[in-house]
Amino acid sequence: MSPIITLTTDFGTQDGFTAQMKGVILQINPTVQLVDATHDISAFSVMEGALVLKGLSEFFPPETIHIGVVDPGVGSDRRGIAVLARSQVFVGPDNGLFTWLLGSGSSWEARQIQNPEFFFPDPQPTFHGRDIFAPAAAFLSIGKDFARIGQRVEDPVILSSAQPCITSAGIEGQVLHIDRFGNLSTNVDRQMLTRSVSAVEVGNVVIQGMSRFFGQATPGQPLALINSFGLLEIAINCGDAAEILGVKVTDHVFVRWG
Amino acid sequence: MSPIITLTTDFGTQDGFTAQMKGVILQINPTVQLVDATHDISAFSVMEGALVLKGLSEFFPPETIHIGVVDPGVGSDRRGIAVLARSQVFVGPDNGLFTWLLGSGSSWEARQIQNPEFFFPDPQPTFHGRDIFAPAAAFLSIGKDFARIGQRVEDPVILSSAQPCITSAGIEGQVLHIDRFGNLSTNVDRQMLTRSVSAVEVGNVVIQGMSRFFGQATPGQPLALINSFGLLEIAINCGDAAEILGVKVTDHVFVRWG
Amino acid sequence: MSPIITLTTDFGTQDGFTAQMKGVILQINPTVQLVDATHDISAFSVMEGALVLKGLSEFFPPETIHIGVVDPGVGSDRRGIAVLARSQVFVGPDNGLFTWLLGSGSSWEARQIQNPEFFFPDPQPTFHGRDIFAPAAAFLSIGKDFARIGQRVEDPVILSSAQPCITSAGIEGQVLHIDRFGNLSTNVDRQMLTRSVSAVEVGNVVIQGMSRFFGQATPGQPLALINSFGLLEIAINCGDAAEILGVKVTDHVFVRWG
Repeated sequence: MSPIITLTTDFGTQDGFTAQMKGVILQINPTVQLVDATHDISAFSVMEGALVLKGLSEFFPPETIHIGVVDPGVGSDRRGIAVLARSQVFVGPDNGLFTWLLGSGSSWEARQIQNPEFFFPDPQPTFHGRDIFAPAAAFLSIGKDFARIGQRVEDPVILSSAQPCITSAGIEGQVLHIDRFGNLSTNVDRQMLTRSVSAVEVGNVVIQGMSRFFGQATPGQPLALINSFGLLEIAINCGDAAEILGVKVTDHVFVRWG
Repeated sequence: MSPIITLTTDFGTQDGFTAQMKGVILQINPTVQLVDATHDISAFSVMEGALVLKGLSEFFPPETIHIGVVDPGVGSDRRGIAVLARSQVFVGPDNGLFTWLLGSGSSWEARQIQNPEFFFPDPQPTFHGRDIFAPAAAFLSIGKDFARIGQRVEDPVILSSAQPCITSAGIEGQVLHIDRFGNLSTNVDRQMLTRSVSAVEVGNVVIQGMSRFFGQATPGQPLALINSFGLLEIAINCGDAAEILGVKVTDHVFVRWG
Repeated sequence: MSPIITLTTDFGTQDGFTAQMKGVILQINPTVQLVDATHDISAFSVMEGALVLKGLSEFFPPETIHIGVVDPGVGSDRRGIAVLARSQVFVGPDNGLFTWLLGSGSSWEARQIQNPEFFFPDPQPTFHGRDIFAPAAAFLSIGKDFARIGQRVEDPVILSSAQPCITSAGIEGQVLHIDRFGNLSTNVDRQMLTRSVSAVEVGNVVIQGMSRFFGQATPGQPLALINSFGLLEIAINCGDAAEILGVKVTDHVFVRWG
């Protein structure tokens, strides 16, 4: 059974740089199953990359290795890390990309990529994706010991905006991301909805209860549902919620218990 | 020999949702050969998806399983189906995507996806691609019996515009699709051209005979040829046929026998 | 161990034509490892395709087969070729795409694709990618003898702009390609920099010495470095070098030895 390595980047594909990463991986492990997750993350959007990796972690089988490279700090002294979480491995820069794998409720082990046996000599400073993260993932896929990759990291970077505040009245969260249709992803994770929801408030709007799909709301009306990232989303059936509600990223969202 | 599963969607890749589908498939069948056909179908364009799937069906080996998800009706009561045709299997919504596999001249067997052993419990209403079609394809790829997926469907949806009228004088068809270069795909299939063609008429233009490639026409002159979907196409060498001829989708085309 | 076939084209993915190529390959060799390098080369840009293939050749393992299809002359009498170089094989039109594999310093063997056992009967004149190059690559991947594909080609097309002039004072080169960030790729290959560089001159600017990464220059200042294609690049940290320096493709570049 071939090990699986997925790739999530903001490189686009035009220059063939993501293909160079694939070549490096196949040099080290020719039997790997390569999966393009996406190379279309908005340039430098660590949040978008983190959401995609959250989604992947929920649907790929154990032992999958995910490479994430959205790396505005490449060439600086930000660390490169490998994270063992949910029986999968995540490899990339330590800049918040793996926020959702590093939750307080779940177990994880993060290590800095330091051992030169796990990457190329003299890595190009602008392309750690190819010269450090791709080989590290490939060496892990052929069974090199995770514990030998480098020392433990106890304080990996976590995007603070991903963490809402849970109270007895409900959840105080915020808008994390607006997709191309204007739907609003919030930082309220499905798993936080341990009680029934009476209302979701955002901007000047109060939405009563949760829907399961868009068609449950009259066209033009806002609704709240769990989206494909597993997050609370506010949307408008047949409309652009961000524009119509005048809401932007970081705006507050309140979930009121029933 | 690994079974092959192809994916044709209008999801784009930015959000990683198509990658979630791949994760689901690999959970069920880790040895499958995954092929991205395209995720760039124009949003909700069932016709474009149907054309791509027509093309795939002609070039993939027997036993390939194709997933097609262009699904404006997701969450409504439109059926999900699996179609056995041309020794291949097609899985997706019953909305016309498989039009060209369901021709009267060829044999096919369509079944509704009903048996819960073939998909995820509690599928997300907005994402049947991941929760129904991906698992159904993956379960078929590991040998689960096609006949057990659900009851036979005798009246799958067929796009009526795909069917021209054949007379003793020729074929009365229409323009199905205009590509980004302005070339006009029609509903006249290569296989319908059982006699020699004296002329092709569209808009106010009469094109004498068929060409084999663009370079056979003087730049700026219209020509008719069989395109890479296997359909009659009207094009202008070095020009935008739709704009220059003033032709739009659904406009009539007439093929005159020689 | 599965043979690897990569695909580099300017087809985009929307129409599923690249997927038809994959179907053809899998018909002939169902166990191949298919790698999408890129389908987003700018339409007809042989130079861009050549740069991507240069990059791939440096990072894929021996015996990889690369298909390159950027083919403005398809349907004319330009030759189709297969090139054995760097222990890899390159298949595509003979129009300069393989320029960097055909250098005078390295060994290579090019052959014209003539033997009909290596492609489809009656290839569609507008789609040699599917009907000639894909089957040729697939047949080579199952061990068909390279020497039988056709007669040797001693004069394959080489892009003349790829070859700078090396003198005792330095290298007289030119700008080959400007990427979407405005960075300038030149025809000065890393391997030509056999002596230390005192300055790089382009337009009215003299850049002292070489940098290793963008961050080594003050924002707004130009720098010279080796890019991910292995070529000398002139860039501006946090800026668009082409616009700020007023430089365009074919403009002269001079590398002065230290």
